[in-house]
This record gives sequence, structure tokens and C-alpha cells, in this order.
Amino acid sequence: MSEWEKNIRKTIPYVPGEQPKVKDVIKLNTNENPYPPSPKVLAKNLDMKSLRLYPDPAASLLVNAIAEYHCVKPGQVFVGVGSDDVIAMSFITFFNSEKEILFPDITYSFYDVWAEMLKIPFKRMPVNSDFRIVKEDYICDNGGIIFPNPNAPTGISEGLDFIEEIVKNNTKSVVIIDEAYVDFGGETALPLIEKYDNLLVVRTFSKSRSMAGIRIGYAIGNEKLIKYLSDIKYSFNSYTMNMPSIILGAESLADDEYFKETVKKVVITREWFTDEVKKLGFTVLPSSANFVFMSHEKAPAEDIFKAAREKRIFVRHFSSDRIKNYLRVTIGTDDEMKVFLEFLKEYLNGYALN
Amino acid sequence: MSEWEKNIRKTIPYVPGEQPKVKDVIKLNTNENPYPPSPKVLAKNLDMKSLRLYPDPAASLLVNAIAEYHCVKPGQVFVGVGSDDVIAMSFITFFNSEKEILFPDITYSFYDVWAEMLKIPFKRMPVNSDFRIVKEDYICDNGGIIFPNPNAPTGISEGLDFIEEIVKNNTKSVVIIDEAYVDFGGETALPLIEKYDNLLVVRTFSKSRSMAGIRIGYAIGNEKLIKYLSDIKYSFNSYTMNMPSIILGAESLADDEYFKETVKKVVITREWFTDEVKKLGFTVLPSSANFVFMSHEKAPAEDIFKAAREKRIFVRHFSSDRIKNYLRVTIGTDDEMKVFLEFLKEYLNGYALN
Repeated sequence: MSEWEKNIRKTIPYVPGEQPKVKDVIKLNTNENPYPPSPKVLAKNLDMKSLRLYPDPAASLLVNAIAEYHCVKPGQVFVGVGSDDVIAMSFITFFNSEKEILFPDITYSFYDVWAEMLKIPFKRMPVNSDFRIVKEDYICDNGGIIFPNPNAPTGISEGLDFIEEIVKNNTKSVVIIDEAYVDFGGETALPLIEKYDNLLVVRTFSKSRSMAGIRIGYAIGNEKLIKYLSDIKYSFNSYTMNMPSIILGAESLADDEYFKETVKKVVITREWFTDEVKKLGFTVLPSSANFVFMSHEKAPAEDIFKAAREKRIFVRHFSSDRIKNYLRVTIGTDDEMKVFLEFLKEYLNGYALN
Repeated sequence: MSEWEKNIRKTIPYVPGEQPKVKDVIKLNTNENPYPPSPKVLAKNLDMKSLRLYPDPAASLLVNAIAEYHCVKPGQVFVGVGSDDVIAMSFITFFNSEKEILFPDITYSFYDVWAEMLKIPFKRMPVNSDFRIVKEDYICDNGGIIFPNPNAPTGISEGLDFIEEIVKNNTKSVVIIDEAYVDFGGETALPLIEKYDNLLVVRTFSKSRSMAGIRIGYAIGNEKLIKYLSDIKYSFNSYTMNMPSIILGAESLADDEYFKETVKKVVITREWFTDEVKKLGFTVLPSSANFVFMSHEKAPAEDIFKAAREKRIFVRHFSSDRIKNYLRVTIGTDDEMKVFLEFLKEYLNGYALN
């Protein structure tokens, strides 16, 4: 070991879902949207000559479009390079006390990675046996709260009253609700932001807007909260949003019809697919997201995961103890889900024979 | 003040150069390249449908292109959202001891912002009366070293021996050389990376590659150094580089002829402009960058800055004490520099009359 290695920060990084390098796969493992971005995005001409200039550091075109879309002021909007960037900046800004921050034990597996890296004390609050977040666990002294609603990888969502009770009982800390999947059936906490200045709602263009490849996430909250967050962001990197992301992001927001249509298609496929796998003996948690979390009493999830992978069907399996017998399956097109269903039928048949 | 505000992180952010919202200006204030990106970049068709998918988190297409360009291994390359992102990640990763990190007093004004935000102790080492970095100041116990070479906003560059002496006498800490401007006449420290595992060289696509709007920066160093940096990056945000940046960045590297031609044009204009302003009585520091740092004995820099701004010519003025009588002027096209020269002549004439 070199001498300089003693004084550097070491960490165990987050491991994202596999991005297969081969082409002809059915990719149901990272919650992407099976439909392309809005035709307005596809048709947009970018002035590549203007790339010689720095982008607007405030990304005003995009920020204003988001503000208008959600009927809030531009000063209530923060944008970042995907919601991961937004949440990382929020951890640095808001989770700065000596007290533990709280999040569920079954949740987005990046939360503890950020906490570890930033040396923020944290505590995982177990979800109950139905995989639901226990509201009362979050009404106590803490350094901050974060969870997704709908939660991931369960897909379970909670209502506005549930969120409000947590927010109003935590005036000493910031509560972050990560609404990456809310468009697929969750209830948004946005109506609460005018009432509570300690609530930050985080969104992404990666799921419902079919734009994972452009890297846009955003947060909405009280103007004071957004100002603190922006100050940290500007102390990190003045120009995070590049020209294509600013322009194409704004273009996506201008096509609400396509957006709603796409989301509806995913939801219809989810409901149909859920019914079908239940017929095969799977337990499926009630999902308000663009994925389902499912488990089979007889066939171990890891075995199904591996067998599917051999057929070039990628789903997600997590090895942590409480959920190791579950698969998280992104909702693809009807055709993709039919292929996966056929695979499952054959697999379970073969399994029954052994 | 709300209760939650007591426990958050507050900071005074970096203030980037003004990005004027009006169009018909002469913009010589943020060191952009006056020429557009390579014709290969302008002609590249992006498959916008693929935006529904996450980009390759390793940005391999871009990383491999950078590695090939510099004749290093892909494992020796780290990419980020502009060199600011690369340096911010490097501060978090490498400047993690209790000891002070060192950088010049006259230098890129983001360094102390990062240090303040990340609570890293730091010490500014004064450049000498010729605005040169004093090598001996960096040969002492420290928590890390960073400076640009060529330095900003002076434009002054130091040779390879100078860098090597600092690097080889600091085996206990990481030395970061920020080569944002090196292509315009500096000497790169890249030949030293095989010899010293504590040296990180940082580059950007924003200046010599005319791609400030796409946000690409990178670092090259020993594979161990890059692995530590990547671990922190993956603990922050798995997908920082969006699809357009990966593809257009690689495309730019494929056109070395255009790159060299553009850089040469900027250098020729710089030398001509330097001679011309010297004739007007300006002192100009010897520049190896795409800007010049200049001062007039009689006309205060701030007055020139303001008067130019009224004529829609934007240059940069810094208020800190040692350099408050200097202007940092980005090298634009010949035509732009002629307009600025005419302005200076008229301004100084008027000044002489008063």
C-alpha cells in the first residue's frame, strides 16, 4: 500500500442493475420505460454549434418548464443529473446533524451507501410483515427522514395522510419523499409543500418520462429549502445540466398527452401481468410503480433469476435476507411480458417435474 | 428560522462567470472556444429513442476513446460532468486527512469553495511577485496538493521538472494537476503518471474541444487512484454521463486534425492580441492558455470591465486584492478581438483626455 492510500476515503459503492452489453435481450431489470420518449423529444433539433458555450448554470428553460408543469414557482425547483444526484446533494445539505437519519430496511439500496460515504449516522426501520412502512417509527427524534413513495423494490404506496403525519411531526428535520415511481399510481406529496417547509419531494425523468438516458432528476419544496440545496450544488459543480438535457427535458414536459398515454399503457400491462403470474402461484405485492415485486412459494427467486438470464431475460434479484425470495420485474411491453410469462410457465412446469 | 435550518449545511457558493441572456454580445469572460465543435460532432445523429434506457454507467465508449487518445489503459481514466465534477469527486476521495491541503493564493477560485463545503482544512500558498507558483512551498507535510498548469487566471505554465519535483516529494499525499488549459501551450504531466502513483491529471472538453455545453471532464492516473475515485463516484451517482455526452465526446476525439487546427488558431490570435494590447500600454502575463491576464498602469481594470460591459463586451474581473487591477480576457475570433481592441483604444484615449 502506498503512503497516500492511508488518508483517502474508501467506500463500498452502490451496484446498479446490470446494463447488458448484448442487444437482443428482454430487459426488465432497471425499471426503464418500454416506450420511447415523446415524439416531440425525438423530433427536436439540437444546435450542436452552441455546444461551444457553457449551458445556463441555472438551467432556467428546464426549471421553468418543471415549475409550470407542477404549478409552483421556479424558486421551488431544483434540478440535477438524475434523481440520484438530487438525493446525494440533499444528503450533503440536509442530513448534517449528529443524529441518525431514518429510512426503511427494505428500500432503495442507495440510501445507506450515501450515508456511509458521507459519514452520516443512520438507522434502518423495519417495514412490517406486509412490507409496509410503519408510520409511527418515523415520529421520534432524528436527523432526517427519507423513503420512496411508492417504496422500492416493493412498489407499495402510502396515502397523503400517512405522509403528512410524518412531515408535521418532524419540524426539526427535513423529510424527503422520493417519488420516482409516483406517476404509475402513487399519491404525490406535492400538495403539502406549501404547508410544510421541511418537506422535499424528489422526481425523475428516468421512469414515467422514458428518459433514463438523459439524466434528469428534480426536487420541489419550499423556496428556502431549494436555496440551501442550490448553494451546495453551486459549491460542487456550477454546470451540471448539459445543453441536450436542458432542451430535451423541457420538450418532454410540453407533451402531456403522450406522457399520460404511455403511463396508462404501463399500468394496464402491470395489472394484466399481475393477474397472470398470480395464476402461476406467485404472490405479488400491490404495486403502484412500473414494476412488480413477486415471490413463488416453491421456486426460489434466485433460481428463476438465473434461469431467466440464460434465456436473455433480465430481471432483478436482491440478496438481502428479507427479500431474497422475491424478484423485481420491470413492466415492459405486452409482448415482452408474454415472453417472460411463457418462460415462467415452462420453468415452473419443469420445476414441478423434478 | 425554522427548526430544521439549524442542522443543515450552509455554504457560500462559487460564482461562475456571467452567462449573458442577451444574444449579440462579445463573450470573452468564461474561456469558451470561439470555434464550434468538430464537424464530426455537428454531423452526428443521436438515436433519441435509446434515451429510454439508462446510459452505460461506465461510459465505456467515451472512456475507451480517451484512453486510446492518450495511450493509457481504460482503467487509468475517470470521466465526470465537466472537470468541476471530476475535481469535486477528487476532493472527497483524496483530500481526507486532518492535514491542510495546499493550493496557490491566485488560482481557480473554486478550490477554496470545495474545501470550505467539504470541511477540508486548506492553506493558500502565495504566488511570487511575478505571479509564479513557488515550488518549494509545496514540499512540506500536507493533506494534498492541487493547482492548474497553466495556472488560472494568470495563464502562466510551469515545466515538467517543476511538476515532477513536487510530485516525487509528496509520496504521502495525492497531487492533482488541473490541465484545463494545457492544450494551448502548456506542458502536460501525463508522462509522469506511470512513474508516480500519487499523481492525478485532470482535463476538460470545455476549452480546447469547444464543448463546454456537453459537460465532460476527465482524470488520468494510476489504476489504483482511478479505482478509489470511481468507488466514490459510484457511491454518489451511478449514471453521471448522459447518452449525448458519451457519444459526442467520443466523436470529438476522433477528429484530431480539426482539434489541432482550432487550438492553433486560438494561439495565433492570442499572440497577435498580446502584442497589440502591449502597444496600448498593457502589461500582459505570459499566457499558455486561451486567455490573457492583463493590467494597465493608468486605467483601473474594474473601470475597463464596466465600460466594456456597457458596449456588450464581456470580460472577467476578479475583486481579490492582488489581482484587482487585472482583466482576464478570453481569446475569441480575430474579429471579436479587433472589436475589443478598438474599444480599448477609444477608452484609453478618452481616459487620457480626462
